[in-house]
Amino acid sequence: MGKKHRFSESKFLVDSDKKLDLSKRPTQAGKELKDKSHAEEQLASDVSALQDAQRVLYASGSHSLLVILQGMDAAGKDGTIRHVMGGVNPQGCRVHSFKAPSATELQHHFLWRAMPCLPERGMISLFNRSYYEEVLVVRVHPHFLIPQKLPKLDQLKPKALEKLWKQRYKEINTFEQTLARQGTLILKFFLNVSRKEQKERLLERLGNPEKYWKFNASDLAERKLWPDYQIAIEEALAATSTSHAPWFLIPADDKWYARAAIADIITARLEELGLHYPTVPEDEQAKFAEYARQLEEEV
Amino acid sequence: MGKKHRFSESKFLVDSDKKLDLSKRPTQAGKELKDKSHAEEQLASDVSALQDAQRVLYASGSHSLLVILQGMDAAGKDGTIRHVMGGVNPQGCRVHSFKAPSATELQHHFLWRAMPCLPERGMISLFNRSYYEEVLVVRVHPHFLIPQKLPKLDQLKPKALEKLWKQRYKEINTFEQTLARQGTLILKFFLNVSRKEQKERLLERLGNPEKYWKFNASDLAERKLWPDYQIAIEEALAATSTSHAPWFLIPADDKWYARAAIADIITARLEELGLHYPTVPEDEQAKFAEYARQLEEEV
Repeated sequence: MGKKHRFSESKFLVDSDKKLDLSKRPTQAGKELKDKSHAEEQLASDVSALQDAQRVLYASGSHSLLVILQGMDAAGKDGTIRHVMGGVNPQGCRVHSFKAPSATELQHHFLWRAMPCLPERGMISLFNRSYYEEVLVVRVHPHFLIPQKLPKLDQLKPKALEKLWKQRYKEINTFEQTLARQGTLILKFFLNVSRKEQKERLLERLGNPEKYWKFNASDLAERKLWPDYQIAIEEALAATSTSHAPWFLIPADDKWYARAAIADIITARLEELGLHYPTVPEDEQAKFAEYARQLEEEV
Repeated sequence: MGKKHRFSESKFLVDSDKKLDLSKRPTQAGKELKDKSHAEEQLASDVSALQDAQRVLYASGSHSLLVILQGMDAAGKDGTIRHVMGGVNPQGCRVHSFKAPSATELQHHFLWRAMPCLPERGMISLFNRSYYEEVLVVRVHPHFLIPQKLPKLDQLKPKALEKLWKQRYKEINTFEQTLARQGTLILKFFLNVSRKEQKERLLERLGNPEKYWKFNASDLAERKLWPDYQIAIEEALAATSTSHAPWFLIPADDKWYARAAIADIITARLEELGLHYPTVPEDEQAKFAEYARQLEEEV
């Protein structure tokens, strides 16, 4: 607590309802950290502070934390989870990876499958991808809507689609607001990698037999849709970055920088909640000496 | 892999269907480790090996791991989870804490609520307490059965109860066998603390204001039933320690020893599965050079 944080949130924050231009936002490391080894030091210090903050969150049992992580393929989501959340007590933290929805999930509202994954009081949930895919990948591939069988949407007309994305933004905002009122701190991070850096990472997977299994030919097809994704991301983030559930756009070409920045923001926000270990009521404490005596005098 | 393990499993193993006498099993550290700092070194090495083993488990996606942790109050379950699983990638590991069953859960078979918590292929689930409470705490307090409304059990007659525990052991064994056939490695650890050590730990909670919130007056009442618990534990462990789901009775008066032993056994067993990173089929690999060329030649 009271530890100085190195990253200024406002630098990464996506403004609510203001046009977001991804091409103007950095993808490379800022100057907060001298180099990679400095970042590792900072990350270690934040991970340790995060461990402390999680313990208090768990013990106090009044709030919960929902971290949402989004990014293009190979943006570094898995590595971020391992490095940022890897030090946290696994008893207090759950990671949920959202893949393509199942047949049953498709029969429900798109927020339905997130419900059982929400963090109860005291807990941290991290969503690796999330319901935001419903306004990102689904927007880029509108035919993914067909098996969702939405009323009034049997034809994928542009106007109807336009309306649908806006409705979904609103539904997400309302949903997140109810969570925030319930005591859930919601922090959303978008890993902003450049198109060039994604290419390097895909080439690395293709060139290293130990990474072959991570390569997915569909990543190449998605990459061709980069401009469509950029538009979907810009609109979705601007429409759903709110004071109760802000989006942070994190430069992610340098993995070490992104990890340190995210750990720092999460820790700072958790500390701001001002939580503390629960205190035992005076009248209960008064009995403690008697309990101790009973134990001491056991035969 | 191939690393020498320090602990010999067989020392801790509970023999199937052979009378277990807890009073003859050690609660204190064995001689595998010179001292606490040696144990920390060993634990660090095992935790690092466990990280590696978990990565392969996740990548290969053919098996899963279910770790069950049981023990009396203050036996050190939470600390064990933090120290043993704390280094594992949270994306591949879920901890489930089983508290008193809810009203809905009571309307179902006692194994029902464990189902959604089972590890899918590639994953680790750790149960902090488990369905074993149904033959431990429920056996010591048979009136906990009343809200379960079991047919033919409206009166808690000793003979009917005796039959019930035996049925439950069988149901658990059958259940665990189906999981094992499905590819789930099941490892069960009972933290064996002495009555004296439990007393010290409860006194510590009562004497340290920072630990006040961990103290629960009901722990004192349960402690008075220590002999009943010992009988319940002896019978349950002997009846449910099988080759497909063995129980390990871990001396737990010295926390550092228990943690190192558990990490060592889990790692050794995972390594024995002989898993490896998935290989990409030759015909798919053949396309990789072409994929790379496409990426390189992008405009």
